[in-house]
Parts: sequence; structure tokens; C-alpha cells
Amino acid sequence: MYKIAVLPGDGIGPEIVPEAVKVLEVVGRRTGIEFQFTEALVGGAAIDARGQALPPETLDLCRQSDAVLLGAVGGPKWDALPPEERPETAALLPLRKELGLYANLRPAYLFEPLAEASPLKREIVAGTDLIIVRELTGGLYFGPKKREKAGAGEVAYDTMLYSTAEIERIARLAFEIASSRRCHLTSVDKANVLTSSRLWRDTVDGLKGEFPEVTLEHMYVDNCAMQLVRRPAQFDVIVTENTFGDILSDQASVLTGSIGMLPSASIGGQVALYEPVHGSAPDIAGQQKANPLATILSAAMMLKYSFKMDQAAAAVEAAVGRVLAKGYRTADIYVPGTSLVGTAEMGALVRREL
Amino acid sequence: MYKIAVLPGDGIGPEIVPEAVKVLEVVGRRTGIEFQFTEALVGGAAIDARGQALPPETLDLCRQSDAVLLGAVGGPKWDALPPEERPETAALLPLRKELGLYANLRPAYLFEPLAEASPLKREIVAGTDLIIVRELTGGLYFGPKKREKAGAGEVAYDTMLYSTAEIERIARLAFEIASSRRCHLTSVDKANVLTSSRLWRDTVDGLKGEFPEVTLEHMYVDNCAMQLVRRPAQFDVIVTENTFGDILSDQASVLTGSIGMLPSASIGGQVALYEPVHGSAPDIAGQQKANPLATILSAAMMLKYSFKMDQAAAAVEAAVGRVLAKGYRTADIYVPGTSLVGTAEMGALVRREL
Ligand SMILES: CC(C)[C@H](C(=O)O)[C@@H](O)C(=O)O
Ligand SMILES: CC(C)[C@H](C(=O)O)[C@@H](O)C(=O)O
Repeated sequence: MYKIAVLPGDGIGPEIVPEAVKVLEVVGRRTGIEFQFTEALVGGAAIDARGQALPPETLDLCRQSDAVLLGAVGGPKWDALPPEERPETAALLPLRKELGLYANLRPAYLFEPLAEASPLKREIVAGTDLIIVRELTGGLYFGPKKREKAGAGEVAYDTMLYSTAEIERIARLAFEIASSRRCHLTSVDKANVLTSSRLWRDTVDGLKGEFPEVTLEHMYVDNCAMQLVRRPAQFDVIVTENTFGDILSDQASVLTGSIGMLPSASIGGQVALYEPVHGSAPDIAGQQKANPLATILSAAMMLKYSFKMDQAAAAVEAAVGRVLAKGYRTADIYVPGTSLVGTAEMGALVRREL
Repeated sequence: MYKIAVLPGDGIGPEIVPEAVKVLEVVGRRTGIEFQFTEALVGGAAIDARGQALPPETLDLCRQSDAVLLGAVGGPKWDALPPEERPETAALLPLRKELGLYANLRPAYLFEPLAEASPLKREIVAGTDLIIVRELTGGLYFGPKKREKAGAGEVAYDTMLYSTAEIERIARLAFEIASSRRCHLTSVDKANVLTSSRLWRDTVDGLKGEFPEVTLEHMYVDNCAMQLVRRPAQFDVIVTENTFGDILSDQASVLTGSIGMLPSASIGGQVALYEPVHGSAPDIAGQQKANPLATILSAAMMLKYSFKMDQAAAAVEAAVGRVLAKGYRTADIYVPGTSLVGTAEMGALVRREL
């Protein structure tokens, strides 16, 4: 029996999350494994109900669960708050830190039937299938920071800080993932300028010997931002610092034109967290228009990374593939000639293919 | 009389820089203004000849000049050096710091006849005409940094540090540039996470009242990396921190498919520096294949920003436009049906159109 904390959050969250839960229920019935789901508040919904984006009872529930499934948080209702108190920041950052989720895995791959939707030309985006491994509990986000008066004005700083141990654990994970894929790892840094990047590079180099099957390449972050647009198919696994990973993974997520299709996993602690890459899309919330596939694919990542149910994960991914191949589309990926379906209908189609 | 320091550098530098110099000579003859050019060593060439990427006599020459024209630095010959000693880093960073060049201006615009070469679909890239104003002497590049033993391993850090005054001067410049263009300024930060970004945002907001004609928008850096790919034409002027600007400007430079066409200016001190965005392209060096247009357009930026010769700058840009419209192309922007020309030939064509 696995306990799953379910945090629908805001906007389209409460519409897409139930579709993924129902997919997991089908998987449970097929495999004879029981999943026990418990819901809790997070984000704007939690601010409204409890005055806090991450109430202690939600954090407790996550800690006592085997995995967390999150929808999305945030919306215009809370945009008047200072940036650091908005649902995204005030819920996600402490959740990651408290659960020790030091690795954020963000695949970006081209679903062939959706190539039309990419901003890139077909020949450029063809074959894109990469995964970004972003360090998630260190670096510029969590190093010492301060703002203070200085003379007539102020000064403020943040610190990009890493220890050998922090770099080693994320790099080892990235090597392992590369080893299970096409065996090509790109470590992204700014070692020509940053001291922390030099420690990063040396530490990554130090692990190379343990993974002789993996080809390791170092790339500067500015060059990586160029290469992702010019030739995204050159990448297999990318590993990088927290802030660099934030930027590059968002960039990567739009290349294939199907951000509504992209899942993510935040792992490394006792409990891992799974959520779609897209946001809470308040403009279409409550209209059954949202695409539940990224959340369903996040549930597939849960099966793989938290429960080692690789076969079940692959079955869910294959079901999604078949639904797309049959021409079913939610509004975000619709093109003329395909069949437009709503959120619940798309979920049902995937379950039928399972 | 204006004194111009000419630093050809490495790779294709010595081929492209003379073409821009000759364009400036034509402008000089037409306008009756004398330009005096003095060459100096920089980058790998300087390492080889003097043992230093930025010899003191080169720096002195720059200081005594009215503007600096730089080709490109670096190449495989020096890649065995540690990253921080390679020509790019060891020449460019101290040059910027010593000359007080706190603002790097990098336009990215679509040359209509070249849309074919963009990795983006035509309808996505259409209308792209933006300029990134990158802070260049502060932020993560220049804040306190250290690497030291800690327990069994090491720790290392860099500091993203800004004062109100540093932010104010770059923001004011960006407002002014926006005001002379389409009056839309996007300030890019990560204010939901970074303390330095909050000071950045507050300081930019503080200047808003002085530029009522400019619409100011704040955008998170991860979102900006997405938007640059999805809808680059939405941007006019982007202002941002040093590292963010490094990443975003390189990303932006490949969107239009014509990095060989993009100039840059680094300004803010007594003397400004102009250089093409592309690198030293060692693979085609010495073959008369390089595109001199980015360097020629950098010279046009020099006319505009250093010498206030706006009309002459516009004339150079127009001449480049006419040469392209007539179908002349260097190898990097060649497509079937156009006329392939070499470096010197392209330079001569521009001068003929002047
Ligand atoms: C909301 C924000 C704090 C978060 C981040 O920057 O990590 C988001 O952008 C993400 O990538 O998950
Ligand atoms: C070579 C390097 C130090 C430099 C930078 O990062 O500033 C380069 O990438 C640039 O953008 O001009």
C-alpha cells in the first residue's frame, strides 16, 4: 500500500489532478497495489482558507506519504501580494526544502503528432528528447541573502553557494539517469566566470570514472541557451545549478510546443513530488478545457521513480501516446482535423487505453 | 578627430575588423570627420605575443581612445588553459571592468531577407526587433567569490550583489533607450526568489515616474526565456542583471538565425567598446568566408553611441540593408538563389552602397 498526498492547488489544479488520480486507481486495480489518496490544501487555496500557502498540516501529510501529486498554484487573486509571498514561492520553495527534494527532473520531448504546435521549424525540433536535472535545494536560491541600507541607498545580495557533497549527489543522479538513457550527459555551468561553477565542474569530472559508459560534456550556460534553440535534439541529459536550471528548463519546455504535455518530478528526499510543468492557467479554470496529460504523465513518473513500477509507468505513457495518435486533443494542442475533447474526457480516454 | 582603438583579436577577427574600419573611413571622408585608428593586441594573440590576454599597453591605448572596436577572441589553441585564463574571460572581463562599461547593448532583430535561416517558424519570428540592456560590471560576475576546503570536501560561492546606484544607472539608460524606440521596457528579474532582484525591481519602479511615456513591465527570468522563444516580437527593450543578460542575450541572438549579423555595444564609461556578438569562428579563420556585417553594424553603433553621428549610423545600416536586398550573402547566411560573396567583397559592397 502506498500513501499519496494529493494537493490540487489553484486554477485548473482541481480539474487535472483528479484525472491523474483516476489513472493511478486503474493502475492499482491492474497491479493489485493499493494507493491511498489524501487531499490537502496548498497555494492560494491554502492562503484563503488557512492564511498560509503551505499549512503545517499539509507539510505533515506530505512527510507521512510515499509520494506527493501536486496540481498547480497561484493566480491573479494573489498577485497583489509581494512576490515572495505569492502561492508559487511561498508554497513550492519550503516544500522542496523541507522534503529535501534536491533534484528536479524535467523532460522535454517532442510528441511527434504535436510537432505542428512547436515555435521551432519541424526539422529543428525533430528528435528532441531531453531531460533537465536541476539542482533544487541549493545554489542562488538558498545561499545567504540580505538587503540593507548603505549610504543614501541600499545594497542587496544572494549567494550561489555549493558544497562538494551537494554537487556530487545531483551529478551522480544525473549520471545514473544518463546511463539509463542515451548515455550522454551535458553539465552546464559558467566556469569561465563563476567560482562555484569551477567547483561544480571539478566535482562532476571527479565522478566520471564511475560511469565509463556515459559521455560527459561541459557547456557554458549562455551557449546552452543558444543550443537549445538551434539544435535541441543534440541533448540527452542536462545537469545544472538551481537558477540555471530554472531558466533552461522553462526555455526547453516551450520548444516542443506542448508545455501542456510535460511532467516533472522533484526527488532526492524520503518523499518525492510530482507536478505538471505548466502553471495554474486561471484564465481557463473551471471550464473543463485544461489538458490533464502533463499531470497524468507526472503520475507515470511517480510510478517509475517512487514505486519502481517501470512497466506501469511505460503503460501509462503508451496509453497517452495512443490517445494522441487517435487524434484526440485538448484545446491547447488542438489543430484542425483532430477531435477536440475536454479535461475529463481526455482522462477517460487515457484510462480506456490502459 | 576621434581616436579609435582597433583590437582585431583571434580567428576571423583580423579579417572582419578591417572591413568595418574601411567603412568608418568612408564615413569619415563623407562627413569631414577624421578617425585615427591604432591597432593593439588582445586575446589569444596577446597571450602568444605578450603572455597576457589584456596587456597593459592595450588597456592604456583603450583608455586614451574615444572608442574601441574589437573583433573576437579565443580559439582551440587556448582551450587547454583553465576556463578563467582563456582569452575570452581573461581579456573581456577586465576590459569591461577597467573601462567602466556597465551597460551591454545587444539588439536582436530580424533581417527580413534572412528569415529563412531562423530556427523559429516564420510567423513566430516575424517582427522581432528587440534590444537587451545587460548590466555588465556588477551582479554575480563581480560580487565576492571564494572557494575553500570544508570538511572532507570544499565549498565555493559567488555573490549576486547590487547597490541602488548600480541598478539606477543601468535602468535609467534602459528607460532612455526605450523612450527612443517603441517605449516598452521589460525589466527581467527573479523577484519571487532573489533578494537582489527585489532591490532591482523596487529601484526600477522608482524611476518610472521620470519616463511617463514608457510602459514598464516586470517579468521573471524563467518566463522571459520562454517568451523569447514563443513570441519574441512582444519585446522592445529588456533590461536585466549581468548573468541573466548573458544567458538571455545569447538565446536571443540565435532566434533570428543571423548571429553573423548582430552587433553589440558596451557603454557607460569614458570610452565605449563595440564588437560583433558572434565569436572568433576558428574553423573558418583565414579563408575569407566570415561575415563582416556584424562588425560593420557594430561600427554603426559606435557612430551613434560614441560620436552622436546618428545620421551616419543610419546610413551604414541602410547600406547593409540594400546589399542584403540585392541578394548578396556570405556563407553563414547563404541560401540557394542568392549570390555568395567573401569577407572583403561583402565589405566593399557595403561601402559602394554608402
Ligand atoms: C515559482 C518559482 C519559485 C519556481 C522556481 O523558480 O523554482 C518555478 O519557477 C519553478 O521553476 O518551479
Ligand atoms: C566570455 C564571457 C566572459 C562573456 C560573458 O559571459 O560575459 C561572453 O559570454 C559574453 O557574453 O560576452
